[in-house]
Amino acid sequence: MNRSQPPEKHHRILQAAIKVFARKGFYNARVSEIAREAQVADGTIYLYFKNKDDILIHLFEEEMDRILQAMRRAIEPLSDPLEKLRAFARTHLSLVEENPLLAEVIQVELRQSSKFMKDYDNHKFLEYLNLLAEIIEEGQRMGSIRPDIHPAIAKRVIFGALDEMSTYWVLSKKRRLPMKEAARQISEILIRGVESGHPGRGARSISSSG
Amino acid sequence: MNRSQPPEKHHRILQAAIKVFARKGFYNARVSEIAREAQVADGTIYLYFKNKDDILIHLFEEEMDRILQAMRRAIEPLSDPLEKLRAFARTHLSLVEENPLLAEVIQVELRQSSKFMKDYDNHKFLEYLNLLAEIIEEGQRMGSIRPDIHPAIAKRVIFGALDEMSTYWVLSKKRRLPMKEAARQISEILIRGVESGHPGRGARSISSSG
Repeated sequence: MNRSQPPEKHHRILQAAIKVFARKGFYNARVSEIAREAQVADGTIYLYFKNKDDILIHLFEEEMDRILQAMRRAIEPLSDPLEKLRAFARTHLSLVEENPLLAEVIQVELRQSSKFMKDYDNHKFLEYLNLLAEIIEEGQRMGSIRPDIHPAIAKRVIFGALDEMSTYWVLSKKRRLPMKEAARQISEILIRGVESGHPGRGARSISSSG
Repeated sequence: MNRSQPPEKHHRILQAAIKVFARKGFYNARVSEIAREAQVADGTIYLYFKNKDDILIHLFEEEMDRILQAMRRAIEPLSDPLEKLRAFARTHLSLVEENPLLAEVIQVELRQSSKFMKDYDNHKFLEYLNLLAEIIEEGQRMGSIRPDIHPAIAKRVIFGALDEMSTYWVLSKKRRLPMKEAARQISEILIRGVESGHPGRGARSISSSG
């Protein structure tokens, strides 16, 4: 961002871009439509962003900051790493459910920018993945997660499961699964998958509430 | 495909498209480059395919037939559903490793076609996912997989984990994980996640060989 421009307009343009990308798709969306949606002149957009890919990347970074904050707020008060995994799954899927336009942009449109997929150094996404690796490592120190799990693989297993469920939710608008139930099932499968089997602790029955 | 055209050329064009899409990206690739790679005249391509998206979809369908066949060959001789899950993970990741250009097209380029993502009725992918659902259901009938697992969710958890690992492998060309070890870790996490905990059966230690 050009630092001499007011930040409020920067944010307004990105919020407008979410709506336009979700409605028209990344490739069909025009910068002029984003300008109209944001109620700024076409030229104003170029004071803040180089092009459409640049808008997409800034939108992603701004929203990832918000997502990272929400995720930290959800897991930091908890002390049990397995409870943290449960909260991670629940929070990930409820962020999707509560922000359907943003979810459409992140799950589908973002992956259509080869600039984003191949050239962009996606440090915010790594930060997000590493929240998972840290939970795994903490659980290994505390003895509730098996020591032979590789955190670098487990973080991708957990993220991959949640991401696939999110894409499925976004693409299947007509017959959506209840996300709370999906979060419960997914976190119980993954917790049983990584926990060290001390009797009396760990995963609850998947069909139980909570 | 226009049925009056020889099928050999159809196949040759699709194999050329895999190379061109992997090299240039789906959006930058031109139909004329695919023609050159396939050693056919530009116009010949349009005897078989409507446009570039149509080539991408036919390429995906042809390759999915081959992938479905390889997967069935890997799991059908096995009788234990947990062993089938292990073979599924191993086969999925070795198909990626052995076909790096195709993997690049499927993991990255394919998702750049919004025609593919949103308009195409992807029945081959559902067939692939349903191999997983069938293994889960079989394990539930035989008592080795917990009855409270929803096969419709578990199939996406398992596919999502393998898919994320595949995308990571494709994008991180320089520091690739050994896929055999990744397959072992992933399948052990997922098997422990779904199995009913009868003592003496089920997941081996992740660090053991085999």
